Formats: sequence, C-alpha cells, structure tokens
Amino acid sequence: MKGREINILISSAGRRGALVKCFKDTIKGMERCNGKVISVDASPLATALYLSDKHYIVPRISDPNYINVLLNICKEENIKLIIPTIDTELLILSQNRGKFEKNGIRIAISDTKVIEICGDKLKTFQFFKENNIPTVETFLLGQFDKMEKLNYPLFIKPCSGSASINTYKINNRKELDFFINYIDNPVIQEYAEGKEFTLDVLADLEGQVINVVPRERIEVRAGEINKGRTVRDEKIIEYAKNITEKLGAIGPITIQCFVKGNAVKFTEINPRIGGGYPLSFAAGANYPELLIRMVLGEKVIPRLGEFEENLIMLRWEDAVFIKESNLDLNRG
Amino acid sequence: MKGREINILISSAGRRGALVKCFKDTIKGMERCNGKVISVDASPLATALYLSDKHYIVPRISDPNYINVLLNICKEENIKLIIPTIDTELLILSQNRGKFEKNGIRIAISDTKVIEICGDKLKTFQFFKENNIPTVETFLLGQFDKMEKLNYPLFIKPCSGSASINTYKINNRKELDFFINYIDNPVIQEYAEGKEFTLDVLADLEGQVINVVPRERIEVRAGEINKGRTVRDEKIIEYAKNITEKLGAIGPITIQCFVKGNAVKFTEINPRIGGGYPLSFAAGANYPELLIRMVLGEKVIPRLGEFEENLIMLRWEDAVFIKESNLDLNRG
Repeated sequence: MKGREINILISSAGRRGALVKCFKDTIKGMERCNGKVISVDASPLATALYLSDKHYIVPRISDPNYINVLLNICKEENIKLIIPTIDTELLILSQNRGKFEKNGIRIAISDTKVIEICGDKLKTFQFFKENNIPTVETFLLGQFDKMEKLNYPLFIKPCSGSASINTYKINNRKELDFFINYIDNPVIQEYAEGKEFTLDVLADLEGQVINVVPRERIEVRAGEINKGRTVRDEKIIEYAKNITEKLGAIGPITIQCFVKGNAVKFTEINPRIGGGYPLSFAAGANYPELLIRMVLGEKVIPRLGEFEENLIMLRWEDAVFIKESNLDLNRG
Repeated sequence: MKGREINILISSAGRRGALVKCFKDTIKGMERCNGKVISVDASPLATALYLSDKHYIVPRISDPNYINVLLNICKEENIKLIIPTIDTELLILSQNRGKFEKNGIRIAISDTKVIEICGDKLKTFQFFKENNIPTVETFLLGQFDKMEKLNYPLFIKPCSGSASINTYKINNRKELDFFINYIDNPVIQEYAEGKEFTLDVLADLEGQVINVVPRERIEVRAGEINKGRTVRDEKIIEYAKNITEKLGAIGPITIQCFVKGNAVKFTEINPRIGGGYPLSFAAGANYPELLIRMVLGEKVIPRLGEFEENLIMLRWEDAVFIKESNLDLNRG
C-alpha cells in the first residue's frame, strides 16, 4: 500500500459523477497516498453514488440527525477530507466544523460569515460594493424608487436561489409587476450583458489563494455549464483573487462575472466547488491533488494561472443503469 | 470484413452522445454487417460529433443548401440509413425523402402529414380526440369561453415548442392573463397529473409496430429525462401501438402520457427517436439492430414488450475535451 490513507467524502453527491471521477483519478495517480472516494446523498437515485468507491444513503440535510450520521460515517471510514457540493448544506457543515476537526476530519469549507454573504444576493452585492468590486446593481422589492433610474431589461431572481431556478429577464414594467409577485423573496438586478464566466478558485485551508481558472460559459443547461472554455484573462483572475482574500474564503469556491469589452461585473459567489470544475481539472488545475496535499500537511505554494487555456469542454449525458431491486437503500 | 457495409448517419447530432454509442456498439456487435456511425451538426461544438466514427459540420437546417450537402455526404460515405434526432428538421427531411431513397439511402422518418400533426399541439389534440385516445383538453387563445369549465391549475406551452421550453403551470387567472401574452402562440391545457411516461415505439419502415418500451420519467432536467425506469404497463403499451398505427408513423418515435391510478392521458408525440432512448437500449430493446436489419431487407417480426422491466437509468454528465485549435471547422 502506497503512502498514507486519505479517504475523501463527497457530500450531497447528486449527479456530480464527473467530480467523483476527478478525485478517484487523482488519488489513484498520487505516489504519496492511497484512499477511497466515498459519496453520500439522501437519495438512492443520486447517480454519483454508483460511480464512487463506496457510498451511503444519509438523512436529508434538514434532518436533525444529518450531522451525527455524517460524522459517524467519517469516523467509520477514516475520512480525512469532506468536499461539500451544494449550497444548502454549507451553513450546517460550517457550523459543525469543530465536531469533525476534533476527529481529524477537515472540511473544505469557509466560515459561516462567508457562507451567509454568498447565500444572499443582496449581501453579496453589498460585499462587492464595500470592496470596490464592479457588480450589477441589485435591489429588494422596497427599493423601487431607486430602480426608476435603471433601464430595461432587468433581471429577477430569488434572493437565496441557486442553479438559475426561477430567474427571468424582465423586459418591461408589466413583466416586472408580474414576476415580483410570482417569485418568492426576489431581488431585481441590472441585466448583465456580455460573456459569462465562472472562476474556479482554490484557496488553501488558511485562505491563501492558490489558483484561479476562468471558464467561459459558452452554453448553459439547467443552470449549469454545458459547453465551456478556459480563458486566460489576467484581469478577472486578479479580481477573483482579491474577492476571495477579502471574503476570507477557504477551499474551492466559484465566482461568477460577465465581461463585455473592458467592463467586468461580478454577480455571484458560491463557496463550494463548482459543477463545471471538471473543465479546470482537464486543463491541469488539479484541485483534488492540492487539497490532499494540504490535508497531508504539505505547504502548497500559489500557482496563479497554472492551467491550459482555450481548452473546450463539451458535455454529454452518460448514465448508470441499475436494476431497481439492486438499488442501495441502506442508510448510514 | 464481416457482412455488408451499413453506414449510418445521425443528423443534428447535438449532445446525443449516448445515442451515437448505442449505434456504434450495435454495429460492432453484429455478425451480418459492418459500418461506421457518422454524425453531422451545424455547430462544431456539438458534442456527439466527437464521439462518432466520423463527422461533418453542415449548414443550418434553414439553409437552402442543407439537403444537398446532406445528400452529398451520404453518397460520399455510402450511408444506408439516416436517423434524425430533432423536431425542427423532420419536415424538410420528410419532404426530401425521395432524393435520398433513389440513392439507396433510407431515412427512418414518417410522412409529412404525420410530422405536421405531431409538430402542432392542437393538431395532436384533435388527432387524439378523433381516435378516442384519452388526452388533456387543449385550447387556443380564442377559445376562452370553453376554458371557464376547467379548474386551475392549467398548463401553458407554445403550440409548436419542444424540450419543455417556455412551459408553465398556471395557478390562477392572473398568471393565465400574463403568460398568454408572454408566450408566443401558446396553447392552454388541462394540467396533467400523475406519473409521466415516455414510450419508445419502433415501427418498421412500412409502419408495423415492432416494440414499445414505457419509460417512467422519474426526474426531468432541461426538458429531458434525467432519471427514469422501464415499466411494463400493458395498457399504455397497447395505446401506444394503437396511436402509432392510427398515425401511420414510421421508424422510432416517442409518445408521452401521464398515468394516475387507472386514468391515462396522452399529451405529445415526437416522430423521431427520443433523447432518453438509451434506457430502452440498456433494457434490451435494441432498435438500432432492428433498424439495420430492416435496411438489410430482413423481415423483422413484432416483439411487443420485449424489454427488461424496472431497469433504472441515472444520468450524469461526462464530457469531451478539445483544444480550441483542434476544433473541426471543416464544412461538409
């Protein structure tokens, strides 16, 4: 058996099969460690479960037993690192970080303060403003008077939404009047134009920025990148480094912005690894390896811009097929 | 070289990588023939191109040269069968079927009359009604008086839409008044409840129904099945056979319905192979092989219900990675 055993747990693994494979391939290829990639999800229909070395069905995030069940699995499986993948579990994992760390289990996650800022579109806007980061003007319902200054189109989305669910372009007053009641707790934004980018940022476990890869979202499907390209844009790389440091984020995070000519406008921060990260992985920005080295206690030095540019990712849907009678319904 | 050469062309291949693989695996496994799977698309970013044995970039479907370019590729590559995959090219391919057939190239496609019925939600509704097929009540804008009889929720969608784009559940009069203007040329339907099924039907090139596989759409993403299960429901299999025969459809088609208790309501017909067909393929309903045997002139006998039931498909997104400089921009 080569090196130390570093078992990794992907939580709320869902359909992140490609991410599971990034971690599996990385561990397999590393000289200095060995280990399994174990995934957990509340649904036995979560595809990524069946692409992992081992998996568990766990209670829903909202279940009071979630953290205890997760902790027990981590102890049982000698997990050294947890990679969260969805927005809705970030707060509870961050709040319970101590329980895991005292058992030698690291979670690649930011502090609750960071998660609260990123989980609320208005707080994110205020954070950008306070730190002189160019962003899209953002308003709550009660701020209509200010909005008269803006021109249509506008953009409306839930204040704490994700995956582009319930987001609409607003072309006129009639649509605005309708959608402000149609969407629960919305924010209204200036409509961002230009090319849309997601930046895959990796900060170390103390918050130092290690790398940033801008991915142009050439085509989006169901709120996630479907076709994309790595782009070496020094300006947005520098902005992303600055945002991450000001925020004090930890581990892998994603930042979204629009670029039109010389203008850049930042729109969102998700303090977790992105669904489209496999493109950055293919471009040589191996965050799983760097995270494992951090967990091993190695000093990982910054390598800003270390990735292959103009690499294109074209997604297609592969599938796992399982007889219903073989579905794993064992609960952790 | 084994058997006859049967090269197959997948048109508008898009992201149908899994379908390309179904055909490639089938040809590879057949004793009596050999051949290539060649795909074409107007976009060099169409993923399936790079999963095929060979590919061509072609003009857009709306381009007056589309048919000639396609025909020349088919002659050049000794294509014996064309598999269309998207709704928008069905009419033009059907109209030009003769040009292909006189060169020995079959297109697995129905007559224009069938395509016109299926491409229009109101005509589909009328077809179902005339043939005593249970369906959801469907109205155009001018038929509001009739709608007063219906209860909310309703469902609104474009009369000739696809992939669930611009479809909304309508909960009240206010939403109805808004969306009838928001959506271009809409139809309003009774809101279908229950489990949603897509039936993968294969008719032979003379219209005889060979097989039907019901797939429950457990989860839908971007209008396409994301998680599904094969279900042996004799009643909807029989209905689908009946619909296909009444319609006079040819080749692979899909039919959609909702099942709630004993009630079945049919909603749509797409006279082309379905995006979720790979589940039926995995369940043993090998339509590529049957289509190839038809092209070889063999008599394919009906095998209704020949598939593995309760097989579950869980999709995840794999990807093709290409350096931008290697993107194939050669036009057919």
